[in-house]
Amino acid sequence: MKTFDDLGFCKVDTDRETRTGFPEVIFCQGKTTAQIAAIFRRLLDHHGKAMATRLDAAGAQSLSVLFPEARYDAVSRIFSQGGAARRFNGEVLVLCAGTADVPVAEEAAQTAEWMGCRVGRRYDVGVAGIDRLLAYRDEVARAGVLIVVAGMEGALPSVVGGLTGSPVIAVPTSVGYGAHFQGLTPLLTMLTSCAAGVSVVNIDNGFGAAYQASLIMKLAHEGCRHAASLS
Amino acid sequence: MKTFDDLGFCKVDTDRETRTGFPEVIFCQGKTTAQIAAIFRRLLDHHGKAMATRLDAAGAQSLSVLFPEARYDAVSRIFSQGGAARRFNGEVLVLCAGTADVPVAEEAAQTAEWMGCRVGRRYDVGVAGIDRLLAYRDEVARAGVLIVVAGMEGALPSVVGGLTGSPVIAVPTSVGYGAHFQGLTPLLTMLTSCAAGVSVVNIDNGFGAAYQASLIMKLAHEGCRHAASLS
Amino acid sequence: MKTFDDLGFCKVDTDRETRTGFPEVIFCQGKTTAQIAAIFRRLLDHHGKAMATRLDAAGAQSLSVLFPEARYDAVSRIFSQGGAARRFNGEVLVLCAGTADVPVAEEAAQTAEWMGCRVGRRYDVGVAGIDRLLAYRDEVARAGVLIVVAGMEGALPSVVGGLTGSPVIAVPTSVGYGAHFQGLTPLLTMLTSCAAGVSVVNIDNGFGAAYQASLIMKLAHEGCRHAASLS
Amino acid sequence: MKTFDDLGFCKVDTDRETRTGFPEVIFCQGKTTAQIAAIFRRLLDHHGKAMATRLDAAGAQSLSVLFPEARYDAVSRIFSQGGAARRFNGEVLVLCAGTADVPVAEEAAQTAEWMGCRVGRRYDVGVAGIDRLLAYRDEVARAGVLIVVAGMEGALPSVVGGLTGSPVIAVPTSVGYGAHFQGLTPLLTMLTSCAAGVSVVNIDNGFGAAYQASLIMKLAHEGCRHAASLS
Amino acid sequence: MKTFDDLGFCKVDTDRETRTGFPEVIFCQGKTTAQIAAIFRRLLDHHGKAMATRLDAAGAQSLSVLFPEARYDAVSRIFSQGGAARRFNGEVLVLCAGTADVPVAEEAAQTAEWMGCRVGRRYDVGVAGIDRLLAYRDEVARAGVLIVVAGMEGALPSVVGGLTGSPVIAVPTSVGYGAHFQGLTPLLTMLTSCAAGVSVVNIDNGFGAAYQASLIMKLAHEGCRHAASLS
Amino acid sequence: MKTFDDLGFCKVDTDRETRTGFPEVIFCQGKTTAQIAAIFRRLLDHHGKAMATRLDAAGAQSLSVLFPEARYDAVSRIFSQGGAARRFNGEVLVLCAGTADVPVAEEAAQTAEWMGCRVGRRYDVGVAGIDRLLAYRDEVARAGVLIVVAGMEGALPSVVGGLTGSPVIAVPTSVGYGAHFQGLTPLLTMLTSCAAGVSVVNIDNGFGAAYQASLIMKLAHEGCRHAASLS
Amino acid sequence: MKTFDDLGFCKVDTDRETRTGFPEVIFCQGKTTAQIAAIFRRLLDHHGKAMATRLDAAGAQSLSVLFPEARYDAVSRIFSQGGAARRFNGEVLVLCAGTADVPVAEEAAQTAEWMGCRVGRRYDVGVAGIDRLLAYRDEVARAGVLIVVAGMEGALPSVVGGLTGSPVIAVPTSVGYGAHFQGLTPLLTMLTSCAAGVSVVNIDNGFGAAYQASLIMKLAHEGCRHAASLS
Amino acid sequence: MKTFDDLGFCKVDTDRETRTGFPEVIFCQGKTTAQIAAIFRRLLDHHGKAMATRLDAAGAQSLSVLFPEARYDAVSRIFSQGGAARRFNGEVLVLCAGTADVPVAEEAAQTAEWMGCRVGRRYDVGVAGIDRLLAYRDEVARAGVLIVVAGMEGALPSVVGGLTGSPVIAVPTSVGYGAHFQGLTPLLTMLTSCAAGVSVVNIDNGFGAAYQASLIMKLAHEGCRHAASLS
Repeated sequence: MKTFDDLGFCKVDTDRETRTGFPEVIFCQGKTTAQIAAIFRRLLDHHGKAMATRLDAAGAQSLSVLFPEARYDAVSRIFSQGGAARRFNGEVLVLCAGTADVPVAEEAAQTAEWMGCRVGRRYDVGVAGIDRLLAYRDEVARAGVLIVVAGMEGALPSVVGGLTGSPVIAVPTSVGYGAHFQGLTPLLTMLTSCAAGVSVVNIDNGFGAAYQASLIMKLAHEGCRHAASLS
Repeated sequence: MKTFDDLGFCKVDTDRETRTGFPEVIFCQGKTTAQIAAIFRRLLDHHGKAMATRLDAAGAQSLSVLFPEARYDAVSRIFSQGGAARRFNGEVLVLCAGTADVPVAEEAAQTAEWMGCRVGRRYDVGVAGIDRLLAYRDEVARAGVLIVVAGMEGALPSVVGGLTGSPVIAVPTSVGYGAHFQGLTPLLTMLTSCAAGVSVVNIDNGFGAAYQASLIMKLAHEGCRHAASLS
Repeated sequence: MKTFDDLGFCKVDTDRETRTGFPEVIFCQGKTTAQIAAIFRRLLDHHGKAMATRLDAAGAQSLSVLFPEARYDAVSRIFSQGGAARRFNGEVLVLCAGTADVPVAEEAAQTAEWMGCRVGRRYDVGVAGIDRLLAYRDEVARAGVLIVVAGMEGALPSVVGGLTGSPVIAVPTSVGYGAHFQGLTPLLTMLTSCAAGVSVVNIDNGFGAAYQASLIMKLAHEGCRHAASLS
Repeated sequence: MKTFDDLGFCKVDTDRETRTGFPEVIFCQGKTTAQIAAIFRRLLDHHGKAMATRLDAAGAQSLSVLFPEARYDAVSRIFSQGGAARRFNGEVLVLCAGTADVPVAEEAAQTAEWMGCRVGRRYDVGVAGIDRLLAYRDEVARAGVLIVVAGMEGALPSVVGGLTGSPVIAVPTSVGYGAHFQGLTPLLTMLTSCAAGVSVVNIDNGFGAAYQASLIMKLAHEGCRHAASLS
Repeated sequence: MKTFDDLGFCKVDTDRETRTGFPEVIFCQGKTTAQIAAIFRRLLDHHGKAMATRLDAAGAQSLSVLFPEARYDAVSRIFSQGGAARRFNGEVLVLCAGTADVPVAEEAAQTAEWMGCRVGRRYDVGVAGIDRLLAYRDEVARAGVLIVVAGMEGALPSVVGGLTGSPVIAVPTSVGYGAHFQGLTPLLTMLTSCAAGVSVVNIDNGFGAAYQASLIMKLAHEGCRHAASLS
Repeated sequence: MKTFDDLGFCKVDTDRETRTGFPEVIFCQGKTTAQIAAIFRRLLDHHGKAMATRLDAAGAQSLSVLFPEARYDAVSRIFSQGGAARRFNGEVLVLCAGTADVPVAEEAAQTAEWMGCRVGRRYDVGVAGIDRLLAYRDEVARAGVLIVVAGMEGALPSVVGGLTGSPVIAVPTSVGYGAHFQGLTPLLTMLTSCAAGVSVVNIDNGFGAAYQASLIMKLAHEGCRHAASLS
Repeated sequence: MKTFDDLGFCKVDTDRETRTGFPEVIFCQGKTTAQIAAIFRRLLDHHGKAMATRLDAAGAQSLSVLFPEARYDAVSRIFSQGGAARRFNGEVLVLCAGTADVPVAEEAAQTAEWMGCRVGRRYDVGVAGIDRLLAYRDEVARAGVLIVVAGMEGALPSVVGGLTGSPVIAVPTSVGYGAHFQGLTPLLTMLTSCAAGVSVVNIDNGFGAAYQASLIMKLAHEGCRHAASLS
Repeated sequence: MKTFDDLGFCKVDTDRETRTGFPEVIFCQGKTTAQIAAIFRRLLDHHGKAMATRLDAAGAQSLSVLFPEARYDAVSRIFSQGGAARRFNGEVLVLCAGTADVPVAEEAAQTAEWMGCRVGRRYDVGVAGIDRLLAYRDEVARAGVLIVVAGMEGALPSVVGGLTGSPVIAVPTSVGYGAHFQGLTPLLTMLTSCAAGVSVVNIDNGFGAAYQASLIMKLAHEGCRHAASLS
């Protein structure tokens, strides 16, 4: 049985939705506009919806002509059409430490929404003014999954991790300078967090954090049906 | 209201179970046996159960005298007494790539069990003999959360991530040599995984992976009650 | 006896074909167009064929005027005239993990062809959708030498190495972001591969991989005549 | 005029107290016990007091025979005799994130005391249980200078920096594992702190932090007499 | 009680002046001009003064239209309006090693002035021509706090630290090439300085050094009133 | 069909000889003696021969009791029984730069012999005394595959690569100090070699180099039968 | 006595020629054209000659108007007027490994000439074609000082060091890609060279190598008069 | 003509004295005592003198039995017999920054003496007490070559380089902790020194510095005879 669609330069994984619950998403960096368009078309034909991340403004302009019903968000750089039919119970709360982290936070928030999550947002709540975070302590405690986005020293996930009994997915950003090394520093900070329950994705990978958050929310939503079938 | 117990050198976070669902666990590295004993005692008194990780054999021998009912597992280096009353639905599947990764895998597996998870284990299923992993493809697809432990080049989580619709928590290990740099290489590999849905914890941090897996299983088990109360 | 041709800024190694079986190839990065043209001319005069790699479009345009019979391939950035007279037995199979790795894969494929190899290509068969690779399992097993090109986490060579009894030459690419560090991560991944039989060349060095693959195919083709003369 | 005492292997900077307000202190690492003893003797003869840091237990035992009036503290590894005559106004508050950071915190606290500061201590107030720190918010706000010691992800100084209008000196420690890289991670974290007013010293350099804190307290104590003389 | 002003993308910390003695300052890198303008307006309204750092020329031009009374300094890239009412006793002396370090030195000097310090400047006094520094030995000895800015090998703070009994804040700069690694080398140099009493801030962080220097001068100016209230 | 033997902590890849031409070899580092013994037994039972690398002297002593017919070589740290029945045409030439590189060179040489290669050895022919290498210029030109082992600056493969038309596999070693960084420097040197036809394996990985060399010699020996069947 | 000329942003070290035998040279990177012009003027007025390195074409055009008698060399990017009156005995031989290294080699060669050395040049003699270097073996053996410039793997100084009894100054260049890390790799290679008698300067620092070579040639030229006065 | 003596594991470069003016010296690290003894014997037989560096105490004890006339210095860890017949004009001045740098400084000083240099020593003259160095300003100005040894931040060569018109060879040491990274920091400091005329050798490589210093002194001593023969 054929599980992919061969375009030569690309083998579109059309089986992925069956296998993992979500269709393939296009990561645009390093691909030509023509390649993106071809893959987007196949995904759209196959799943009735499609999403592409890290698309720059020029590429968006070209693709909009070909896909007039698609939306482009200039902050998150997401180009998408359609979206999840269902809506999972519970909330994914996206926090970010500073104003400059908003683009990555929005990549996460909009991805999670596209995949079927309800999403809350609290931005610019970095730890150097701890009262800003503490003002939302209840929301933090109540969220199903937390995506915590931070550049600079990346300390926010450690504090958040201590305020919640839900999983925290930390996203370091490339926002900073000097000893920040394009995001290496918050990445290391988050990996060595003294708060248990924090896991980490790649620098600026808002998409990946949202993807995992959505897998978790789906699991919770389905009441662990997979699991149940084991017992 | 007092949320911690002050021992001077340590402030035991007795409130944590209320706040996050799980009591504090002792990370033994860098602490004296006397300090570990004092904290273990407080936790045991407060919660009726206690766990300590990264305890070496000498420390275990001393502590066993003081806590005769506690167990010490020499492979995982976990010292514990009591455990979770409940048992979550679904299974946490712990995979590891090579024989030398077993101690970290066991730290994860035993932590998850102590916290209330059902745990499956499949060890030595590294990608250089891909048929070993594929032999368990169904189990991989069915698991609620997957903890994937790998040293050397750390490629296993990428393959596993593509076979499942459940969240994957990757744990790089310090098993390797040369360009492996004590685990830095599999850490980077896992962070840059082309499989979405993979998040990463610190090198050798089986405990952290299991902790997050347990938070996810608890969320799934409770049918997202937190979340539900929001809607 | 004079073994090189002295241009002052460059000593063209005209003896190399005698010594190693293949003429010198021009690496264009860091050279002026005038320098490239002068060396290309000498090689062409001496060997009746010439090849230059890493030539950008502007340089190609200038050189095409001087060498109207030469070809320029914009994907691989190779500028060449003529090629191998012979054709070695067996096949070099070039695999790449993602669409963005194609330029490096093509540098390898076209170099190997220019040097006399038969070349097969299978692109976008990264490990996060393992069925794509497994669909070509027979081809992988049959190939004489495999060149495996991958960016991101660079896991593909480890899986391929376990599926074949032929040498695998791994090429990390600079395709990725964040903790990928411009190709450092797949480089380290490949170096620490748990699959034996994998060796590695520099980041984006499709040329080098193809060069070594060609040396191997030549050795196989000649039935080890060198060696035979020893016994 | 001679400003130092020449021992050949060492030139004791006997002028330093005049020049900077404090005598030279011996850093024992890399020196033989005989060398330490000789320098300690000179300093004692010259200033009537002396201090040595990073002295291991074996060295302390040998030196105690030669300097029976000196004290050795096994936690901070400081060997000292005598101390400051004066006592500066105000308090240096030493905070540390975890129990394993106590030795570095004590090196800082005892150095500051030896140099004439009043010292407060609050240990194990790491950010993953933020209420522990917030319980001392008033003390933090009131302190003249704060020395904040943290290993792991080193996030504490960022939070403290936002709670005070006094200078914060951050000390990363080598307490941690894996992606912590022997203290490199908290060092980078502290350097990229989004809290202004935080400066950083070398990994485990409790002494250096205390030295600078003492210079600040002296400046404050003297009502900026230096400065005043300028206006 | 509300301690911040919520602009959505930013939570302006209006309480900071009360809490720390100085209002929030805008770090422009990574923020849009519109965002900077909105925050600048709020700060101006709230405090009657405002400052923004790392503003490029284009941004300055746009903002000058909106804030005609503000000043822009093209060397330090500071945009500011108003400033400290008071003037602290004593002097902050800003030294830099080379001509190319002047922009960072000016960021420090102008920030300190804006915050209420008297500032002296001695530029291009790097250690390879030690007599240039020694010519100002008296000024160095007399200053209340010293900010020492250096790129290349960053050796200046070590020498300065040995000439003064006042705190030295070292600022590495990104001025250099090759093994300088964009400022990593002077950063490491300063952190490992054999001169006690030297602390370090991030690469090019003239602002941070000046901020801490100002906290120290304020402490000295106020005769340790905070502290006094403790005794 | 079962392709492996499940020992729980290890899944012995008994199918590998069929798949790749050579049986699995045990890498001892990180495994207990009991684990090594169990795997060695299975391999021996299955293939009639077995090999284990990186076995220390203590482990060798224990295993020798269990496997009295096995040999242990203290220089290469290889423990083996039996070996290849066939002997490939042609020669693998193992070169090393310095005396301290001999253990890694011997790991390579003995592995290649065990796998069926004829092996030549030329040791201590580092480039700082280039006449030593040039004395063997004919042997270098004649060899089928060259394994070049070097620590320190790792320059030898670049020179050798220019003297031969056969593939060169470079092995950096951990022999060196200071800026050698445990083998990182020769690793990087070899990866950036200006000699085409050089590929690289992990630091100290003599085994891996020999494994790939053997795959190449097998290919040459079999006259590219695989390949031939394609045409 | 005043040893420098104070321009505010710069303190011109006019005493340097007396102290070290050579006047100050301007490193243009990071300086404005106005600053360069002012310093160049002072040096010219004071010494009757001046030199500036790393000057780009635009800067050269501006400065040429102000200093019509000065020369600009576009390859080495040196701008200079006048030069050494004397000419030292013996020859500085500048070697470089590849064509792309020529600019750095020329910076070295022209600096050495400006300082009074006789200079020989042999370019593109990299080790992958060892016969090119060996063709100049006599020149190498005869030179007074050798400056060896190499990018890529930087192996040339090790071979040269073994062919001469004169000091070798190695200059790594930023010519390369991938694992070359902008010159870090040849820098490390040269530092760990197994050839004694090789010292190293910063990446691309042709000037620094030439400066030291000139100090050595001056010392040799003067027959060690300094030294003689000691005996 | 045979230029080396083949011991199998080692090819003794007996021709080196003819070629470079000095016999080979044994670097003991990584060699067995038996290997060292064999090489030492050959060198002694051939040249009538021999030297071995980095020999530990145990090795020295064994070798002393075999070579009763040899000397072992426990500080420099040099084992030697005989030495240079001649004595060059002029002085090599060895400076070191701290007491813990003395072993490396002595390796340099004793090597230079063994090779025929007159050597001066000034130890513990680090820049944090600049008057200690300035006290020897005349000696610094007069020396023929300066070897400057420093750990920690490695700033000393920059200051020395500005005080002399003779070549400075800088030796970073592994003395330090934390952000010193086993000598990486002073290595980088020295490479980026703003003082021209400074070149650098590997961490702790006192031998290499002395070797190059001796080549320079020989060149100066011989009045540039090599060179003279060219003109």
